[in-house]
Parts: sequence; C-alpha cells; structure tokens
Amino acid sequence: MNYNQCWLNYNPISNYPDKEVLSDIAIFTGVNKSSAIIENAVNELELALKRILNITINRQQHIEDAKQADAIQTGIILMITNSELKDEGFILKQEGNRILIQANTEQGLLYGTFDLIRRIAQGDRIKELDIRQNPKNNIRILNHWDNMDGSIERGYSGKSFFFENEELLVNDRTRDYARLIASVGINATVINNVNVRGAASELVTDRYLDKLRTMADIFEGYGIKLYLSANFAAPIEIGGLSVSDPLDKDVINWWDKCVRNIYSKIPSFGGFLIKADSEGRPGPFTYGRTHADGANMLARALKPYGGLLIWRCFVYNCQQDWRDYKTDRARAAYDNFIGLDGKFDDNVILQIKNGPMDFQVREPVSPLFGALKNTNMILEVQAAQEYTGQQRDVCYLIPMWKEILEFETYSKSGGSKISNIVSGNTYNQLNCGMAAVTNTGNDYNWTGHDLVASNLYGFGRLSWDTELSSEQIAREWILQTFPQDERVHNAVLDILLKSWSVYEKYTSPLGIGWMVNPHSHYGVNVDGYEYDRWGTYHRADRDGMGVDRTVKNGTGYVGQYNEPNASMYENKETCPEELLLFFHYIRYDYRLSSGKTLIQHIYDTHFEGVEDVIKMAKDWEGLKGLVASDIYERVSARFEMQLSNAKEWRDRVNTYFYRKSGKNDEKGRKIY
Amino acid sequence: MNYNQCWLNYNPISNYPDKEVLSDIAIFTGVNKSSAIIENAVNELELALKRILNITINRQQHIEDAKQADAIQTGIILMITNSELKDEGFILKQEGNRILIQANTEQGLLYGTFDLIRRIAQGDRIKELDIRQNPKNNIRILNHWDNMDGSIERGYSGKSFFFENEELLVNDRTRDYARLIASVGINATVINNVNVRGAASELVTDRYLDKLRTMADIFEGYGIKLYLSANFAAPIEIGGLSVSDPLDKDVINWWDKCVRNIYSKIPSFGGFLIKADSEGRPGPFTYGRTHADGANMLARALKPYGGLLIWRCFVYNCQQDWRDYKTDRARAAYDNFIGLDGKFDDNVILQIKNGPMDFQVREPVSPLFGALKNTNMILEVQAAQEYTGQQRDVCYLIPMWKEILEFETYSKSGGSKISNIVSGNTYNQLNCGMAAVTNTGNDYNWTGHDLVASNLYGFGRLSWDTELSSEQIAREWILQTFPQDERVHNAVLDILLKSWSVYEKYTSPLGIGWMVNPHSHYGVNVDGYEYDRWGTYHRADRDGMGVDRTVKNGTGYVGQYNEPNASMYENKETCPEELLLFFHYIRYDYRLSSGKTLIQHIYDTHFEGVEDVIKMAKDWEGLKGLVASDIYERVSARFEMQLSNAKEWRDRVNTYFYRKSGKNDEKGRKIY
Repeated sequence: MNYNQCWLNYNPISNYPDKEVLSDIAIFTGVNKSSAIIENAVNELELALKRILNITINRQQHIEDAKQADAIQTGIILMITNSELKDEGFILKQEGNRILIQANTEQGLLYGTFDLIRRIAQGDRIKELDIRQNPKNNIRILNHWDNMDGSIERGYSGKSFFFENEELLVNDRTRDYARLIASVGINATVINNVNVRGAASELVTDRYLDKLRTMADIFEGYGIKLYLSANFAAPIEIGGLSVSDPLDKDVINWWDKCVRNIYSKIPSFGGFLIKADSEGRPGPFTYGRTHADGANMLARALKPYGGLLIWRCFVYNCQQDWRDYKTDRARAAYDNFIGLDGKFDDNVILQIKNGPMDFQVREPVSPLFGALKNTNMILEVQAAQEYTGQQRDVCYLIPMWKEILEFETYSKSGGSKISNIVSGNTYNQLNCGMAAVTNTGNDYNWTGHDLVASNLYGFGRLSWDTELSSEQIAREWILQTFPQDERVHNAVLDILLKSWSVYEKYTSPLGIGWMVNPHSHYGVNVDGYEYDRWGTYHRADRDGMGVDRTVKNGTGYVGQYNEPNASMYENKETCPEELLLFFHYIRYDYRLSSGKTLIQHIYDTHFEGVEDVIKMAKDWEGLKGLVASDIYERVSARFEMQLSNAKEWRDRVNTYFYRKSGKNDEKGRKIY
Repeated sequence: MNYNQCWLNYNPISNYPDKEVLSDIAIFTGVNKSSAIIENAVNELELALKRILNITINRQQHIEDAKQADAIQTGIILMITNSELKDEGFILKQEGNRILIQANTEQGLLYGTFDLIRRIAQGDRIKELDIRQNPKNNIRILNHWDNMDGSIERGYSGKSFFFENEELLVNDRTRDYARLIASVGINATVINNVNVRGAASELVTDRYLDKLRTMADIFEGYGIKLYLSANFAAPIEIGGLSVSDPLDKDVINWWDKCVRNIYSKIPSFGGFLIKADSEGRPGPFTYGRTHADGANMLARALKPYGGLLIWRCFVYNCQQDWRDYKTDRARAAYDNFIGLDGKFDDNVILQIKNGPMDFQVREPVSPLFGALKNTNMILEVQAAQEYTGQQRDVCYLIPMWKEILEFETYSKSGGSKISNIVSGNTYNQLNCGMAAVTNTGNDYNWTGHDLVASNLYGFGRLSWDTELSSEQIAREWILQTFPQDERVHNAVLDILLKSWSVYEKYTSPLGIGWMVNPHSHYGVNVDGYEYDRWGTYHRADRDGMGVDRTVKNGTGYVGQYNEPNASMYENKETCPEELLLFFHYIRYDYRLSSGKTLIQHIYDTHFEGVEDVIKMAKDWEGLKGLVASDIYERVSARFEMQLSNAKEWRDRVNTYFYRKSGKNDEKGRKIY
C-alpha cells in the first residue's frame, strides 16, 4: 500500500483492562437490512478490535425486533432508536456486560462506533460509559483545492488522490479517505478546487457523473456528502450560452437542467461551493447583479433536491495600488456582504474565512461573523498550511481555531461567540458549520508532515465538538497515532501545543502578517508584498511599522466590530498585543506590556523562535527508536527544513528592521 | 510577409543629386564565377537602387580580366584586387563616372557594397568617395539565446525564428536575417542558447546537421559563420559515456569524432560557444580540471578545420549567503581566470561580459580585460535589454558600449583601451572581437520595440568600427529606417541619445544596479535580490547604502584594476560619481559634486526620469502622420508601458529610501 492509515492505524494495546466487556458478539438492529453505513461501521469495529485487542468478533446481524435486541446481555449492540438526539447524534453506554450504541440514524450509529473505537484505541476504560453526543455543527466540510490535472493549489503533500490527467480516481484510497474523515465526524467534502477551470467545469456534466456516482456511493456509506466547486461561468463555457447572468432565463434553465441531471445520477449529492467575483473568477458582478442574485439562482436549482449552495465571501480588490493608504483589504468581506444580510435563500450559506485577510499566522476574527444576523454562515479555516509553514514547518492549528471559536462578537446579548454563530445556535439556523481547506494529498502519510495529520484529525473533532480543548484533541490524536509510550506522548504533545506560537515567533510580528515570498508563500521576504497590488502592507519606515485601521485616524476597519470590541481595538493600550501591528502604526521604541520596546520584542521573539525549533527538533531526536523508523526519519527531515526556514526568517526580519531602525539588539546578538 | 526589413527597407529618396553617377551598369570580376556572396551583393545592390532611386541595373558579369575591367568607365564595378587590406576590408572610390568597390575577398566586396548602399540610402553624396576600410574586430558575433522549443531566454521580441518544436526553421526569414546582419558587418552567429539542454545538445549530431548545412549555406553567402553553443556534458548526455572529463581519452575521441562529422557536413562551420561551470551548467570542475583543460580539449578538436572555441567567463558562485559581506561576485571572473592567462590554445577565446556583474544599466568595466595579457578576448555586450527595459522601455545602448570601448585599462604602456584589447591590437592577436547577446525574435519588427533595432544595427556597425560615434550610428540608422524628414530625424535622434541616461535616472542609482523583480528582471523591486543568493546587494540601511569594494575596508575588488584606475576607484572623492555606490558605502547626507546630497540626488533623478519619459513620449506623439502608422502605434504603445514602468520605479525607489532615510524631499514632491 502506498499510504498509511494515520490515526486509524489501530496499534495493539497490551493489558487492556476492559477486554472482557468487549465480548465477541456484535449485534445490531435496523430497518435497512443492507445499509452500507451499518456494514461499514461493523467492519470498522471488527478491524479495530482485531488489531487493537486481538478480539475476533462473531456477528449476529439484522435483529429487527427491539425487544429481542434488548434481551441480549453481552457484547456491543448497535441500535436504531428514537431518542432525543440530533440526526447524527448518538448514545454510548455500558450496561452490565454490554455496550450499547444508540442513534436515530445509521449515521449516528457510525459516529457512535467510531467514538467507541477511539476510546479503545486510546486505551481508555469503557466501563461505566454513559455518553450522549450531538454534533455542534451540522455542516462539517472539507474543501479540497485539487485540480483535475492532479495538482493541488496550495497543496503540500503530493498530488491529488481524486484526479489525474482530467480523470477521476476511485480506488481503495477513496474508501480509506472516507473512513479517515468519517472517523472524526466530517460529513461533507468538496473534491475540486474553488478556482474551477478547464475540465473541472465539466464535473457537473455526464462526462464525469457516472464515475462521481461511484465515488459518492462510497462516501455515502460513511455519511459523507459529495459537493462540487462549480464554475459560475459554466453556462457560457460549457453550456454554449452567451451570458451567465443569474437573472437570465436561459441561464436559470441551464442550471436547473444541470442540477436535475446531477441528482438523477447522484441522489445523495450535497451541493455547490462557489468562488465568484474573486481574484479573477467570474461572478454576478459582470451583469450588474449582486452576490445574492447569483447565490439564490443556484440555490433554487438545488432546493428541490435538498441541495445546499455555499458561497465564499473571499471577495476583495486584488488590483490595489500600494500608494493608496485608504483602501483596506481587511474591510472587503464586510463591505461586500453586509448589505445583503437577509437576502439569501435559506439553503444558501456564506462561507467566511476566519480572518479578514487570508489565513495568516495571526489575524483578528472576521467582523462579518458579528454583523450578519439573517444569513447562514460557515467558518472557513485552512488546514493546508499555506502561510503557516506549508507542512514543512510543524504548526498545530487547533489552538488558533479555538481562539477564533471562543471570540465573543457581541452581536446578540446573552452570548454570541463565534462557535455559537457558526453552529447556528445564536440565530437558530440549521445550515451552518465549519469548513477546512484540507491539507491532504497522495503522500504516503497523507499530509506531508506526519505531525500535522493532527490538524486534519483536529478539524473533524473540533467541528463536531467545539468545546473540546486543543490539548485533548492533540492527546487523542497522539494516542491513536503512536505506540503506547509516555515519553513519545509527552514529547509530541509538547511539540504540537507550542508549534503555532513558535511559528509566530520567527515569522511576521504582532499580527502584521505577510512578509512572505510572493506566489509560493513559503519563506521570508519582508517587502515581498509591500509594493504590490494585493492590499497586504506593513508600512514599515525608519521610525515604526503597522497599519492604522482605527476609526479615528486610520482605515476605519475597527468600526466593523461591535462594542466593546471596537473600542478595544481602537486604542493601542487596550488592543491585544498580539494584534497590535494589525490595528496600529507603532514606533520601534514603543514599550509593550512586557517592558520591552517593539524592536527588542522583534529581535527577542525571532531569536527565541529559532531556539524553540532547535529544542523541538532535539526533543524529536530523543524519540529515535521509540517511534516507527519511517515516521522518525520523515519528521526529522522536516525539522531540518523548518530550522533552516526559521533561521532565514530570523536573520532577514532582524536585519531588515535593524537596518531600518538603527536600534541595536540589547543582548548584542548577531544581526547582519 | 510577417516581418519587416528594418533598416533595409530602402525607402525612396527624391532629388538624389548623384543619380547620374550610378549608371545602369554593374560590372564585377572574380575568380569564382558562381560565388554566392557576389551574387548576393549584386542582388542587394539591384534591389536597393531600384527601391531607393528607381534605377534598374543592367548587369555585365564575370569579367575575368582585370585590364578589361579597368577599361570600363561607367557604373559600379566590384573588383577583386590584391590591395593592402585585411581579408574583409574594402576600398570604395569614385573615379569619373564609375564607382569602384575593391577588396581582396568576396566578403570584402559584400561589405563594400553594403557600405555604398548605406550611403545612398542615407542620401549621402557619393561624388569624390575615397574610402579604405578594414574591420577593427575580426570576430563580430551575435549570440542568440534561442531554445529549441521556440522560446528565447531573455527574449523580448517574440519567439525564435531558428527553432520551433525541436526543429530547425530555414526559410525566407533566414535569408533576410543574414542580409540584415551582414549589412552591418556581423560575420558570425551562435543560433542556440548558451544554456544547452534537451534536444539542443543534439544540434551537433546527424539529427540536425543536414538542415544546419542548409542554414549555414545561406549564412555563408553573406559572409556569416554558423556557430553552435555546445553542451560540455554532451559525451554523457548524448554520447553514452560516463564522464565528460576533458582529459579522458574517450571524451577527447568523442569530441574529435563529433567535430569531424560536423565539418564533413558543414565545411564553413565556425566553432563552439561554451558556458561551463556557471549557474548550474556542467563543466571541467566536476573532474578537478581547469577551464583551460576544458577549453583546450574542445579547441583541439576544432583546430584542424580552422574552428574556434569561445569560452564564457561568466563564472561565479550563485549560492552566496546574503549574510556574507566578504564574498564579492564582482571579483569572480577575474579570480576564476587570471591564473589561466597564457594557458589557452590560440584558437580559444575567452568571452568576457562588459562588466563584472551582469549587464546592469551601469557597471564599471570588467577588470579582466586589463589583466589578461596572453589570452584572446571577446567583449560580450547585451543588446537584449534584460536589465535595461526589456525592449518595452527604449534604451539605446551604443553610448554605453562606447564608454566601455573607450575605457583605458593601463595594462600596457602606450595605450591599452578596451577597444584595442578586444580588437587584438594591444597584444597582436587575431582571434578577438565583440559579441552581442542579440535582441531579436520573430516579432514583425524583429526587436519588439521598433526603436531598439538601432541596438542591433549599432552593434554591427560599432564592432566593425569602434571609432564611430553613438550619434553617427544613430543618425545612420534613423536615415535608413525612417522617411526623409528633418522633424522625424531630430526627434528620434534626441530620444535615442538620451534614452540610456533616462533609463538610468529612474532605475537603480549610481552604479548599484539590480533592485529589479527576481526572475523576470523587469520592473522595480528594491529588495528583490537583497536577501537572496545571487551576490547582488545594495546593503541599504537607515544611514546610507552601497557596497564597499575598496582594498582598504571592503571586498578588495578595486585591487583588480591597474593603477591609476585602482586609486581612482578606491577613493570616494575620485571615484566617478555614476559608479559611487558600486564601489563605496555612502551616507544619504553625503554631498555629491553637484552640491546635492545622495538622497536628494535619488529623489531628483527619479522625478526627472519620469518627466523625461513623458517628454520623449510627447516628442514621439509629434511624429504622428510623419512615420508609418504601424510603427507609430507600436512605439506609442511601448512608451505607454515605459511611462507606467518609470512611474513605478520612481515611486517605489523614492518611497523605499524615504522610509529608510527619513529625509524629506527638498522640493516637497509626493513620496508615499
């Protein structure tokens, strides 16, 4: 096999205490006797118990009578019930010598089964289990930026496992992919790049639908809906129409027919993801229409079949003049969409990036979340580490996502933090949730860097339960990924938990972002975007740096937040320091709360960042012989790359600001 | 026809005074009755006289007896003589009603014919002509960086007209190319890129030799020798050997056989151009051999057939660490080759770039010219405007090349300026001359920007006669290119003559160079190469900028020059100001001889540069209706691009240094 199983490796556990409870009989019930989901769940359970505990299960299947099932006193019982649960929720409990997995749907049973397996794989006790879980978010979706030539836009772990030479790939890996993501609760996936070009525009046509059906069937067996990124200009490019105006009858008919055809082939089809009027992609603006016009037109085509239309809010002017200090890219999502609040159909969802810029190592939360009140929203995060080390540098992102989810928007009294807005709780919405631009590819280990499979794992777990802590998620992943060894667990946990902070230290300081090489987005280039058209500036001069986004003197971006957030950001003194340069122009000699000047803070963090990487690499070295040698070697090689990257960042950032500020490092360290 | 004839357009001239001298009879003599060169010369004369003066020539051919020819008293007589002339020299004189073109060789007659045509095309009188000309340089060669897929490395005027899809193109344009370059005295051309890869490595094999023969035959008819760039690793890549060690017997045999085969097919073959051990190209270093070992081995294979081996000196460390202030790329050519002086065979020629870096808008002359005393040298200049506006911005380069040729090296008492060194005069050498990386492609006008055909024209004329002035060359080109109109001539002359200085004003200041976008090399990026591996730094900080290359405190590069040049460069006060930042680190508040501070000089020149472009564009606008409308439109479009480029340079450079220095512009102009 040219790939591994990540956290579904099911490493053997010796001396598991509750082995006797896991008797050798699995029994389940259900109306659908031949359900693929149930079949997959039981197969998974068999595989897991065999590999982890060497238990061979003896199946007893298709008990249709609930009473009969109730009577069974031994083993694991999967049972369709009619409990107070969401569709995907489940109950997991121990009663005497039996383990009961209950749910209202087969999908719930699947999640319950994976939950049980997770506990066993971690070596957790299963005695006295009494658990009732519902997913916090209804939509837990991956976005693949895979192109049909097999390349992946911003992919750092090999080629696509969905596409090759304009053809679809459906094979064993498709199923193992489905197992992996279903095991952590992901229930939807968009398999193609949001920049839809060439053959990808034809994914919605008969050219590909039969093969997509095969793929969708596999996914459906794991509770996963297949979505496609669609080309807003498809009516022109493949439909032969002269426009793609959303109010044009022919265009409406074309999409209606297109969608009808899709559902005739793939009844479980999820819907479309659309990037429109963004970075050169076509959209409704061409015809003087709004995003609402565009989205609703597509949503109405999907509506009869229960399909959803996800519309990205990543819309900004990418032809900005660097001389222009007034235009502020950070304002764009809010400015473009706030006026449309309430104008979208109920099966339209706006997908909003976590921050106002573009997945930098540190950004404030997008103010749009706290502003829209009558619009379905999805929070979009990026597991693909485009700006956070590209899976060469380790950067465990769950702590970042947790901070975002915990952010209080003050959009509604009584609590309206991001996690409640995107879960739909705040405004009582159904079609809400979380999306991650995924970090996967056809590399042996799926994610290039073995340690950042934790981000894929973590996205699933966090989108299922936003209350989980970063540490708990990391622990879970470690326990399932590595052999039982305290030293391994502690070392890896320590690396993961500090990795985001370390990456932040040696890259761009205090929320200013960017300073990366144009195009590739890996490696340091302080002025790389400073005189370019992307709206991403640090405005450093000999006295200081940062972007004034205040209402009083700046771009006014701060005014997009509700109070008291707006006032907090408006004032240097109350602005969280990690975002100081995002909101304010600050002199190099400004004293931070630590007592250090800004320039000394830059020097110190950059020297520290490199020291931290050296320490992490050394800690990993200590695991030689304790983890599988192939993993050991791969991760060691990545640490080597990371150290080299970190040093380059340190030296260039320090030198750049030393040359500009003329301020000596108080500790007299080497700056060039 | 999808291309024009540039300066061979032969525009009609009315009221030409000496029309009667140009009688309708052309007579010539020669031993070779069917000489292609003579045939081409006479055809050209016919064409020119017909188009310029509407004279139809009546040929009288093949007079073999000199006395008989002497007896002819009317018309143009081409005559092979045995005068005191170099092989390519000619005599041009009027005697009564006849114009005599005399030479010892057919090639000499060709050049004499083109010289006569040039005079007529310019409207010059031909009465009392009495001219004796010999080329100053024996080798006048073009280097095409054309790849076999049809692309051109650093080409800014379309695709290759030599190659397409790994095949050779031989067609009408091949002949018109030969006419164009022969008309200005160029006698050799390397048709393929010095970076020899893929199919290009096989140009030396039977795969291409027959077609190359067809091309070489056309060239030969215009006195042009065909050269090829060869791959030093060819014995491995196409010969199946395991090494390309120049001292290995099998390698020597392989090249001997290869060259023998080439000459059996193409007796007129010129030789090889080699880029070795440079920017990743293979070379003798792999085997612990010297450049002399490598070059001599190839030269010995060529020797029996009179072939030449041209070896490029563009060898430097392209993996430099920007933190390293001691390594100096400017030193590289000298350091790499000085120890080999006298060790090259006499059919080896070192081809040395004009400056120590890489064709920047301003560089000092390479000190290698003043150091080698027993080595054949070719001066390499770049007509392709890689760093001088890429044929979008007009930049007439002859003034730059003139300055280089006039530079006194003090390598030998009694005068040893560059022009005498590369002509072979200083050290009495034959195999010397000038090379230009050419600016041609398959664009309609050959050079992208119509006005920079003057650089191709000028290179030919200058390499033939290094004493010609920039202005004279420009005038010649203008008179042959544009219709007779004083307003056109004056405006274009003014544009050409100031264009280099204008380009220098709005780009990088005082010899520091670079500040361009990496890879593309067009457009401004002040820090583009500052933290990179290419050895090209400006070292700007908040107090000043420039590279200290003095012997006393710097990299010692200055010490590569002979006295008194070394002392002149060593001291800030005597260093020519246009090179001040190349040789010295200078504070922004340093006063230049103009009384301006360095920073004010930067501001002023950058504002002026843009004003100058506006003025040039306006002057060109004034020619609407006076020049052919297609030329007018093309050049206007280029001026628009140039102005946009110039503004971007102005604003970024000024902003960059303003932010760094904190010094206000004395005139209070807009800096961002």
